[in-house]
Amino acid sequence: MATINCDMGEGYGPWRIGDDVALMPLIDLANVACGFHAGDPSWMRATVRLAKRHGVAVGAHPSLPDRQGFGRREMAMGREELADALIYQIGALAGMLRAEGMALHHIKPHGALYGMAARLDPVAQAVCDAADVFGVPILGMPGTLHESVYPTRGHRFVAEFYADLDYADGGGLIITREHAPVDPALAAERCARALTSGLAASLGGVDVVVGRDSICLHSDTPNAVEVALAVRGVVR
Amino acid sequence: MATINCDMGEGYGPWRIGDDVALMPLIDLANVACGFHAGDPSWMRATVRLAKRHGVAVGAHPSLPDRQGFGRREMAMGREELADALIYQIGALAGMLRAEGMALHHIKPHGALYGMAARLDPVAQAVCDAADVFGVPILGMPGTLHESVYPTRGHRFVAEFYADLDYADGGGLIITREHAPVDPALAAERCARALTSGLAASLGGVDVVVGRDSICLHSDTPNAVEVALAVRGVVR
Amino acid sequence: MATINCDMGEGYGPWRIGDDVALMPLIDLANVACGFHAGDPSWMRATVRLAKRHGVAVGAHPSLPDRQGFGRREMAMGREELADALIYQIGALAGMLRAEGMALHHIKPHGALYGMAARLDPVAQAVCDAADVFGVPILGMPGTLHESVYPTRGHRFVAEFYADLDYADGGGLIITREHAPVDPALAAERCARALTSGLAASLGGVDVVVGRDSICLHSDTPNAVEVALAVRGVVR
Amino acid sequence: MATINCDMGEGYGPWRIGDDVALMPLIDLANVACGFHAGDPSWMRATVRLAKRHGVAVGAHPSLPDRQGFGRREMAMGREELADALIYQIGALAGMLRAEGMALHHIKPHGALYGMAARLDPVAQAVCDAADVFGVPILGMPGTLHESVYPTRGHRFVAEFYADLDYADGGGLIITREHAPVDPALAAERCARALTSGLAASLGGVDVVVGRDSICLHSDTPNAVEVALAVRGVVR
Repeated sequence: MATINCDMGEGYGPWRIGDDVALMPLIDLANVACGFHAGDPSWMRATVRLAKRHGVAVGAHPSLPDRQGFGRREMAMGREELADALIYQIGALAGMLRAEGMALHHIKPHGALYGMAARLDPVAQAVCDAADVFGVPILGMPGTLHESVYPTRGHRFVAEFYADLDYADGGGLIITREHAPVDPALAAERCARALTSGLAASLGGVDVVVGRDSICLHSDTPNAVEVALAVRGVVR
Repeated sequence: MATINCDMGEGYGPWRIGDDVALMPLIDLANVACGFHAGDPSWMRATVRLAKRHGVAVGAHPSLPDRQGFGRREMAMGREELADALIYQIGALAGMLRAEGMALHHIKPHGALYGMAARLDPVAQAVCDAADVFGVPILGMPGTLHESVYPTRGHRFVAEFYADLDYADGGGLIITREHAPVDPALAAERCARALTSGLAASLGGVDVVVGRDSICLHSDTPNAVEVALAVRGVVR
Repeated sequence: MATINCDMGEGYGPWRIGDDVALMPLIDLANVACGFHAGDPSWMRATVRLAKRHGVAVGAHPSLPDRQGFGRREMAMGREELADALIYQIGALAGMLRAEGMALHHIKPHGALYGMAARLDPVAQAVCDAADVFGVPILGMPGTLHESVYPTRGHRFVAEFYADLDYADGGGLIITREHAPVDPALAAERCARALTSGLAASLGGVDVVVGRDSICLHSDTPNAVEVALAVRGVVR
Repeated sequence: MATINCDMGEGYGPWRIGDDVALMPLIDLANVACGFHAGDPSWMRATVRLAKRHGVAVGAHPSLPDRQGFGRREMAMGREELADALIYQIGALAGMLRAEGMALHHIKPHGALYGMAARLDPVAQAVCDAADVFGVPILGMPGTLHESVYPTRGHRFVAEFYADLDYADGGGLIITREHAPVDPALAAERCARALTSGLAASLGGVDVVVGRDSICLHSDTPNAVEVALAVRGVVR
C-alpha cells in the first residue's frame, strides 16, 4: 500500500515554510529537516510532536550543511565526512523521537544531496553508510543509483512519485527554486496512474517510469493543502 | 572508585585544541563536544573511535549554541528551547556511538551552560529534561544546583573535582579564558586529598568541599599530558 | 521633521519575514539586517536595491550573533568583541551600499542588543565604538543609556517612538515574540500625539516620554502595511 | 618589485592556525580571512592591528561560505549570490581597516574559490563584480582565468608564485589538506628563479610558467617561519 510523504519542519528560528499544521493530518510519512538545511532543535521537537498527534511516521530528512542555500547547492564532500554529517543529523532526530516515545521510520536525503546520491556512487554509498547505523528504509527515485545502490547495501528502497513536480523526458525531475501552484485534480489523476502503472507523462509528453511506493508532496507548493487533499483521495 | 574525565574532541573543521591522542589512554571518561561549541560530525566520529580504541567511556558534552565564543558566553534561553538543543546534541552523539557499537555513558554540560545550571533552576531542569530522554548520569559540581536538582529529578549525580583549576573561597571555580600550566605533582596531591577527604584548599587557603566521584582534567592546559600522567598515578 | 523607520531585509536564505516590497514606498529609513540575526549577502543586496528604488535611506541594523534566536536572546559579550562584531556587520552593509552607489545613513542596534545598550554601559559604549568608525547617527529610546551615552560620545541620537508596540508605565517597551495586529487609526493618532507632545499613553494609562525624531514600524506586525499607510498620513 | 603575501588571521574563536605574530614582520601583504572560511570579527580586528604595527598592507581573503570545510570544498553558487557573498566579506574587512585608519589593498580569493575562479568564467566574473566595488588589485595564478578575466574587467592582476607548494606538469598547483614542511633554502632558490625568469620546475621536472609579482607563503606550513625568513632574503 502506498503512502504520502512530505518534507516537514522546514522552518528555522522565527522563519516558517509550509503549513505543517494543515498538511500533517493528510500525510503518512513526515520527512523532518534535521538542522543542516532547515529545522532547529525547537522546530524538530514541535514537528515530531505534531506528527505524533496525527499518527504520522517520522523519517529523517538530512542535508548538505548549507542553511543559506537550503541544501540546494551541490558541495564537494568526501564519502566519510558526508556519512558522518548524515549520522549526526539522523542521530539528532532520533533523539527527538526518543523524547516523544517514537522510533525513526525512514531516511530521505534532501535537495542537492538527493540529486547527488542519484548519480554519484560515493554519495549513494555515504547515504547507505548512515542508513547502516539506523537500519531503516530509504526513500528515492527509481532509475537512479538510489534504486541500484541502496538495496545492494541491504537497505529497503522506497520508490517515490512526485505529485507536484514535472518530469523531464529522461525521467529526471525538473527542480525549480520556487514551486508553482499545481492543479489538484490533475495531481490526483497522475498519482492514481503512477500507483497502478508506475508511469507518468513527462513535460514533453513521454511516459517515464516513476515510483509507486510513496507519493511525495512539497509543503512549499503555494496550494499544497488542496493538492494534498486531492491526492489523499486516491492514495489509500 | 573514582574516574578521570576529560573534555575531548574540541576541534572544529581544520582547527584543533588539545592533544586527544596523548590524553585518551590516560582517562576513563571522555566528554565529547557535540558541535555547538566545538566538534563537528567528523571530529565526533574520530573522537568516539579514539575512545573506543582505548576502552574509554563516552559522554556527551553539550553546550549553548555559540561556536565563536566556545560556549563560554552566557545566553538567555528558555527551559524548553534549551532542553531541545541538548537533546539534539546528545542524540547526534548517540548516533555516532551507535555507529561504533558503543552506548552513551553520561552527560556533562559545557562551559557557560555548566555554570548556569549550577545556579539557575530552569537551566538545571532543562539539563534534566534532556537527561530524562537518555537515562545516563550527569557530571557536576557539589554544593550547587547540580547536586540538589539532578538527583531530585531521578538522575545519578557524579561529583567532580577540578584538578587543574583554582577554587574560590566560596567553593566556586575560577575560570579563565586560557588555562595556565599546572604543577603535575601538586595536582596529583590535591586529587589524592580530594578523593579521600572531599576537600581542597581554595586560592585563599580555605578548605572547600569538592567532588570525589570523578577528577576533571582540561585538554587545553598547556602541560595537560604531564598533569594527566601524574593524576593517573593517584586515581586507580 | 520626523521620519518613519522600519526594520527591513529580515529574511534569510529561502525564508522571508515581512512584506518589504509593500512597505518600502511608505517609509523614510530602512534598518537593514546585516546577517547576524537575519539577512544574508543576497538579502542585503536586494533590500538595498529596493530602498534605492524608493529613495529610502539605509541604515545598519546589527545584532548579537544569534540567528536561531533572531537576536532576541541576551548574550554576555565583552565591549571589545561586541564592538568588533558591530563593525563587521556595519562594514558588510557599507560594502553593499557602495555597490549600489549609496552611503550608510544611520545605525540602529537590533533586538536584545538594543535592549542591552539601553541599560548596560559597556554595551552602549560598544555601539559608540562602532559608530565612531562610520560617523552616522544612532536610533534609540529616550530615557535610556541610548540618550545619555550616544551624544556624550559625540554621536547624534535619533529618538524613536514605537507606533506598533505597547509601552509599560515606566516608559519601557513591552516586547513579545510575535507582534499582534495593531489598529491603524489608533497607531496614527498615537504617532501624531507623540510627534507634537513627545508623550504616549502606556498600557496602564500613564503618559510616558517617547521619542519624536522618528516613528518605528515593524514589518512583522500582521497588518504592517495598513499601519504604515495610516502612520504615513500623519508623518510628513 | 615583488612582494611576499601570506594568508593571515585564519583562526576562529578559540582556535588558531599559523604563527601570525612571527610571520607578520617577514611579509609585505597580509591576506586576511573574512569570516566565511576562517576569521571572525575579533580575529580580523587583531590581525589588522598586527599588520598595521608592522607596516604590512592588508587585503581581503574571502571564501565560499564553509567554515567546517575551511573553504576548501567546491560549492555550486550562482554568479550573483557569489558576488554578494564576496562584497559582504570584503566590506566587513574594509570596516575593520577603517577602524584602524587603513585602506583595503587587494583581494585574494581563498581555497576552492581561488581554484574555481581559475577555471570557471562565472566565478571569475563574480570575483570581478566584487572587485568593481572596491577598486583594488586581485592576486592570482598566471595561465588561468585569473590572468585572462581580471584585466579584461579592468582590474590589476598580481601574478603569484607559490613558494611552499608543488606544481603539476601542467602548471597547476598540487593542493593537499595538510601542508608538508618545506626546505627553506630550496624555497628561497625557487623564489629567486621565479622572480628572475618566471619559471619553476614542476614535481615532474618540467619548467612551468609561474607568477613573478608576489610570492605566496602559507602560515600553516609546519616550518612556515623558517621558510619566510629564507624567502625574505631573496625578495627585496
